[in-house]
Amino acid sequence: MSQLARLHHFPLSPFCRKVRLALAEKRQKFEEVVERYWEPSAEFLMLNPAGKVPVLKIEGRVLAESTAICEYLEELWPDPPLLPEGPLDRAEARRLVGWFDDKFYREVTVNLLGERLLKKVAGGRAPESDKVMLGIRNCRFHIDYMAGLLDRRRWLAGNAISLADVAAAAQLSCLDYVSDVDWDRSESLRIWYSAIKSRPSFRPLLSDHLPGFPPPPHYADLDF
Amino acid sequence: MSQLARLHHFPLSPFCRKVRLALAEKRQKFEEVVERYWEPSAEFLMLNPAGKVPVLKIEGRVLAESTAICEYLEELWPDPPLLPEGPLDRAEARRLVGWFDDKFYREVTVNLLGERLLKKVAGGRAPESDKVMLGIRNCRFHIDYMAGLLDRRRWLAGNAISLADVAAAAQLSCLDYVSDVDWDRSESLRIWYSAIKSRPSFRPLLSDHLPGFPPPPHYADLDF
Repeated sequence: MSQLARLHHFPLSPFCRKVRLALAEKRQKFEEVVERYWEPSAEFLMLNPAGKVPVLKIEGRVLAESTAICEYLEELWPDPPLLPEGPLDRAEARRLVGWFDDKFYREVTVNLLGERLLKKVAGGRAPESDKVMLGIRNCRFHIDYMAGLLDRRRWLAGNAISLADVAAAAQLSCLDYVSDVDWDRSESLRIWYSAIKSRPSFRPLLSDHLPGFPPPPHYADLDF
Repeated sequence: MSQLARLHHFPLSPFCRKVRLALAEKRQKFEEVVERYWEPSAEFLMLNPAGKVPVLKIEGRVLAESTAICEYLEELWPDPPLLPEGPLDRAEARRLVGWFDDKFYREVTVNLLGERLLKKVAGGRAPESDKVMLGIRNCRFHIDYMAGLLDRRRWLAGNAISLADVAAAAQLSCLDYVSDVDWDRSESLRIWYSAIKSRPSFRPLLSDHLPGFPPPPHYADLDF
């Protein structure tokens, strides 16, 4: 590749974290541009008319949608793999990517991170307590679901790390930035998060710091 | 394959239509089970704890999430292809799949089909007029965006049909069932929809009939 790839992202967007983790797992260097996606510039809307982060500029082309970007990275740099070998196992990993990107995000992330942090960042509005309560309840269901998977498997989709773990860790790490994960609820989940948090690909996420919204002390602690 | 695949779906779910179209484009036969996904049975939740349709039972395994299923179909039956050849072109097709599955769905389908039909089907509640108005406004933006693509390309992601067209037609055909597409707004879009509507894969969708909610006469008409 002649030119360094450039990632347009927002530090506390789980979908951007998914791509940052995937790029780092693939050992690809990239430049970063932080986008305030809730008030997109005209230039940014030219890059992605959907007005969403992440956007990856690579080889003179513009890629958008985190799943499309991750599939591209997997095709271009299959080693180390982030998808298992057989089509059925890949389908299971991709099912879980969908689970975290859609169900977990809508049921948990939007209600917790969205209400407690992103609303304030974007417009200064106060969180709605019924949504926060709903997010906390939903989070318990999701932790139990993940724990159920991790009691049978080392990683979420099988015995090797995959995009399922990347998608899950992207959501959970954003919630952890606002202390919204009850790590005491499942030892399996804590062990899994500890393993992924210790990977070199995770380091840049742990040093994210949103001005005016400092993370809690345990956020970057590998022994949480 | 020893046993016929079985698709658990709901006729007016765009994500189920996406999978039905992809299966038919791949010339695969399958059994159908209609699921009332808003009141999922215990058996269905065992198949997919996310409680979402579509679910595909194939080779003794259970696949969920429409994108994971479509990628699986593409890997198993690459011919005829529903993704272009180069990784960058595939990323563009997958970007558009994300566009329709997420942005179009949330901005248009939920506000129109969701308010006007699915709410009634699921619980008898009345549509909220501000959401319907928003859906109509958003739909214009999306039609113009598609028209812009189709002025440069024969199909949405390039010169061959792809999952982008399948994802888009899945959403639009659901809206067309409740007469919510202004086909007069773009001749390019009408020509594209006419081409995809004429394909053998589309026929089963055109004979869908939800009891108590008949489609308008133009719905199944190839000359609309």
